[in-house]
Amino acid sequence: MRQSILFSKTSKTAPKDEESQNAQLLARAGFVHKEMAGVYSFLPLGLRVLKNVERIIREEMEVIGGEEVLLPALQPKRNWETTGRWDTFDVLFRFTSFYAKNEYVLGPTHEEIITPLAKRFISSYRDLPRYVFQIQDKFRDEKRAKSGLLRGREFLMKDLYSFHANQEDADLYYERVKEAYWKIMERVGLKDHTYLTFASGGTFSKYSHEFQVATSSGEDTIYACEPCRVAVNEEVIAEQKTCPECGSDKLKKLKAVEAANIFKLKTRYSEAFDLNYVDEKGKAQLVLMGCYGMGISRLMGTVADVLSDEAGLFWPPELAPYQIHLIALQGAEQKAEAAYEAFRKAGVQVLYDDRDAGAGEKFADADLIGLPFRAVVSKSTGDQVELKGRREKTGELVDLKELISRVS
Amino acid sequence: MRQSILFSKTSKTAPKDEESQNAQLLARAGFVHKEMAGVYSFLPLGLRVLKNVERIIREEMEVIGGEEVLLPALQPKRNWETTGRWDTFDVLFRFTSFYAKNEYVLGPTHEEIITPLAKRFISSYRDLPRYVFQIQDKFRDEKRAKSGLLRGREFLMKDLYSFHANQEDADLYYERVKEAYWKIMERVGLKDHTYLTFASGGTFSKYSHEFQVATSSGEDTIYACEPCRVAVNEEVIAEQKTCPECGSDKLKKLKAVEAANIFKLKTRYSEAFDLNYVDEKGKAQLVLMGCYGMGISRLMGTVADVLSDEAGLFWPPELAPYQIHLIALQGAEQKAEAAYEAFRKAGVQVLYDDRDAGAGEKFADADLIGLPFRAVVSKSTGDQVELKGRREKTGELVDLKELISRVS
Repeated sequence: MRQSILFSKTSKTAPKDEESQNAQLLARAGFVHKEMAGVYSFLPLGLRVLKNVERIIREEMEVIGGEEVLLPALQPKRNWETTGRWDTFDVLFRFTSFYAKNEYVLGPTHEEIITPLAKRFISSYRDLPRYVFQIQDKFRDEKRAKSGLLRGREFLMKDLYSFHANQEDADLYYERVKEAYWKIMERVGLKDHTYLTFASGGTFSKYSHEFQVATSSGEDTIYACEPCRVAVNEEVIAEQKTCPECGSDKLKKLKAVEAANIFKLKTRYSEAFDLNYVDEKGKAQLVLMGCYGMGISRLMGTVADVLSDEAGLFWPPELAPYQIHLIALQGAEQKAEAAYEAFRKAGVQVLYDDRDAGAGEKFADADLIGLPFRAVVSKSTGDQVELKGRREKTGELVDLKELISRVS
Repeated sequence: MRQSILFSKTSKTAPKDEESQNAQLLARAGFVHKEMAGVYSFLPLGLRVLKNVERIIREEMEVIGGEEVLLPALQPKRNWETTGRWDTFDVLFRFTSFYAKNEYVLGPTHEEIITPLAKRFISSYRDLPRYVFQIQDKFRDEKRAKSGLLRGREFLMKDLYSFHANQEDADLYYERVKEAYWKIMERVGLKDHTYLTFASGGTFSKYSHEFQVATSSGEDTIYACEPCRVAVNEEVIAEQKTCPECGSDKLKKLKAVEAANIFKLKTRYSEAFDLNYVDEKGKAQLVLMGCYGMGISRLMGTVADVLSDEAGLFWPPELAPYQIHLIALQGAEQKAEAAYEAFRKAGVQVLYDDRDAGAGEKFADADLIGLPFRAVVSKSTGDQVELKGRREKTGELVDLKELISRVS
């Protein structure tokens, strides 16, 4: 992609109304634009990152047998009355259709849709287990939405729902999702910052779990046991002052952002919607459920927050909108064009800074945008390019052909 | 994919409240589920089709230089007041945030977002032209929503916006989009049913254009000139009773569904948001715009409507959720398993009917689901499989290895 025709541009200053570091950097680098508090547009570079997060999550959900669906944002009031959440779910956007005269909910989660939908297809023990996920836009009327992509009124989320014949099977799948989530956290570059956090299970089980990423921008507080890489959240600390894994009382208080959560729902929703199956003995039983959420735009914001430095963003290769930032310096335009063509032909994802601008501006923008590698073509580099990793201080001169074979 | 664990199931009967053929077939085949009038869930098979339509459209938008973004569904009231459409756009969902105290629009289109966004990045003739598109969920408070996926209250759409320095450039791009749209209509299998339809251009230009697909389920009426493959719509016929291409007055009245439309917006929105650029002479000029919509879920519904027959759906290869429906008949289970493994290893997209069901039920389901090919493995076929195209009456016996090399 030629930067000269890229729809977005970088900016030296952050928007005045943007408090959070992730949103300041993402806005300055031209990845997102804030439309209202908690509501963002994703610009071409930002959308490529978002799609990469989406792809990683989709792949890992498919590994654990997830079947992808797409449920609507518009949901009927009656389903929320059935579960009793019409009056109790505090961040619901509710409104009325002028023509249909229906009252709608703008979906913040989808138990109220997936459970009656599953009822259409699940009737026997032979129909279980089932694992259904979606990647879909969610809406929450948040009281405060000042943390950029970390807390949106509109945001992209993956939600997975599982259906089981018995609790043992539900428990086994819960552990498989945990493993898949660790795999995702590793692939997006956040594993070393993540704590499996024991949270209140409500009425359903002793604990649910959150994947909390430590960062000073986080709105949550967790109490972390460093040797075990686990933590307990604020609800749990009130009852339990020790590490749930090793019993240690040396818990360190950290600010963190909740990237994902997993819940055992037991029969909470199957009971509300009468979701039964007939077991091997011909007896009707309630289906057991689990739900497993992961914020996609929030993960992108978390990576922007945690992995960046003063100069700008840093994207791990699997998330990066492009792999290499090719920079043409004055006097080396033709050589840079040839390098760009060579990269393109080799199928390498390149952002090519072909703008009429000085070296200082181009280098600063490359640091701000944060692609894994920067390749500079100048008069002094001869047949070579200067290659530098985003976090490295100095680059090395490499032969272009060798570089292409290395990255492709 | 093993059909025995597929989340959806087929149904012999259509939902009672579903009037339209596309929705009846898609519901019976387990592709979609109606949540409310005009609001559908996409089940695994249906989502695969939707993603294929999306992919085709994305590819063709990229061919004509489109850069992809993702704009929010939540839009601020003030932008709609700026264009005067807060009071005049008749299908707007409007509602108020309890916490933010803002009035929101649930986006039915995105001129009110993309124009001020473009203003951030376009200031000089050097920043033009720009082509920006998105694939995104849209909302319209439709008076009637009885046509299944052909008219939704929530639906998936591609909207492209172009920005130009002068009308000649805008006109040239308009023609390029027309060509891209024809290419898309060809790839989704609807080209032979499509009429380029001259519609009223409103105050902006003499005509805008619609891509209308002839079908008895269509809500629109077009007046078609068969030799030219063009038509005029109901607004235009009042003023012009002849074919705009050849002048013929032999126009045939058809029912049709509007799959796409293209508009020259001139300065309607750039004026409202003060979107200017400085030209080569240093003079400020209003940017000229075009907008180009295409319904993605609607295209899927149109294909389901137009290409189906009494037995069920029919998907062209580029849209099909899987390429081959592999059917195991009783007594040939092991052979079918081996065939399934061979297909999978070869990377062929196969739906494998491994259910404990009779041949009649399996054949009927294969016709209903409508994959391009059906491959039957039975005791009588020896080392071969019986291969049949969805629209063919009889199949042929082919060697499995040969089949795999043919389809992969």
